[in-house]
Amino acid sequence: MKELIRQIGFDDGFFRKSDERVPLVGCVVRGNDLVEGFIISSVSVDGDDATELLAELIDKSKFKDTLKVVFLKGVTLGGFNVVDIKALSDSVNMPVIVLLRKPPDMRRIKDAIKNVDNYEDKLRRMERAGRIFEIKRDRGRLFFQKAGVNKKDAIAIIEKCIKTGNIPESVRIAHMVASAMTLGESVRRA
Amino acid sequence: MKELIRQIGFDDGFFRKSDERVPLVGCVVRGNDLVEGFIISSVSVDGDDATELLAELIDKSKFKDTLKVVFLKGVTLGGFNVVDIKALSDSVNMPVIVLLRKPPDMRRIKDAIKNVDNYEDKLRRMERAGRIFEIKRDRGRLFFQKAGVNKKDAIAIIEKCIKTGNIPESVRIAHMVASAMTLGESVRRA
Repeated sequence: MKELIRQIGFDDGFFRKSDERVPLVGCVVRGNDLVEGFIISSVSVDGDDATELLAELIDKSKFKDTLKVVFLKGVTLGGFNVVDIKALSDSVNMPVIVLLRKPPDMRRIKDAIKNVDNYEDKLRRMERAGRIFEIKRDRGRLFFQKAGVNKKDAIAIIEKCIKTGNIPESVRIAHMVASAMTLGESVRRA
Repeated sequence: MKELIRQIGFDDGFFRKSDERVPLVGCVVRGNDLVEGFIISSVSVDGDDATELLAELIDKSKFKDTLKVVFLKGVTLGGFNVVDIKALSDSVNMPVIVLLRKPPDMRRIKDAIKNVDNYEDKLRRMERAGRIFEIKRDRGRLFFQKAGVNKKDAIAIIEKCIKTGNIPESVRIAHMVASAMTLGESVRRA
């Protein structure tokens, strides 16, 4: 029997420089294709509350007890609100896997982040996300970082959670909802 | 080869008496299980703009040309903002099918609607939704009204669009997103 994992994937919406907060959407999917629910909140732009917020949203959710993995699209939400994925994984007691379409350009990030409050802490949290791994798939390459799980298991989990394209189904749908919340209609790419 | 229909299903969120508008979510699904996108807007509580709003959201959407059917959960959005499903079907040039968990209690509705502006027009639009049909399924009974399609084809379309439970997948997911937008976490039933 195929083991069905219950995944939650988060993504944030688009924002303007003047916005203080941006919508944050979590989508719960069983296996790779049964949408079971949503958590919708907001996260502060360039703030430092993303880790605690995600932990709280997951902890108080009715889905908590059956979730097996948390997916994020990048370690930053709402601009430079950087998630400490090790702390998040410890807090919710499950693997946290960060999907990346390409490895981050750290030089560009360091240049952009310098104008943001508390940027040294933010960079430290980015670095704590650790090594970037690569998966070569028929449909292209996929990069990820992870906490609370080894590389081999992380790859197996990612593969089980993809339905279409190169992204776990929960994150794919969370992205569409978050973009539609801020643009009126969903868009394919961040 | 199984023909895949592209469905859009709309549902609204919860609201308080004091709210002027309520979130409106449309979910686009190919076949009965590939989520392709979302349209997110809002509709006025107890207003009279639901028909025009739905037509406009569909018409200006990038999904328009490939959509084959519009599903609604009941003919009312945002309290008593009643959709004229015949006018909507004519406008968007495709079937509009309204799903009901049980036939509406018209006596109770007539009693409640009397305090709302323009209630006679609203009742007329409700009546224009026409006869209520029933489908007996393994998982229970389902009721529907329809415009722009005959009964037999409507039943075939509904069956093609259900993945789980007794409700087309687009409406099932739209309901979860709309409820999470207003309550923070999705709930199963309206």
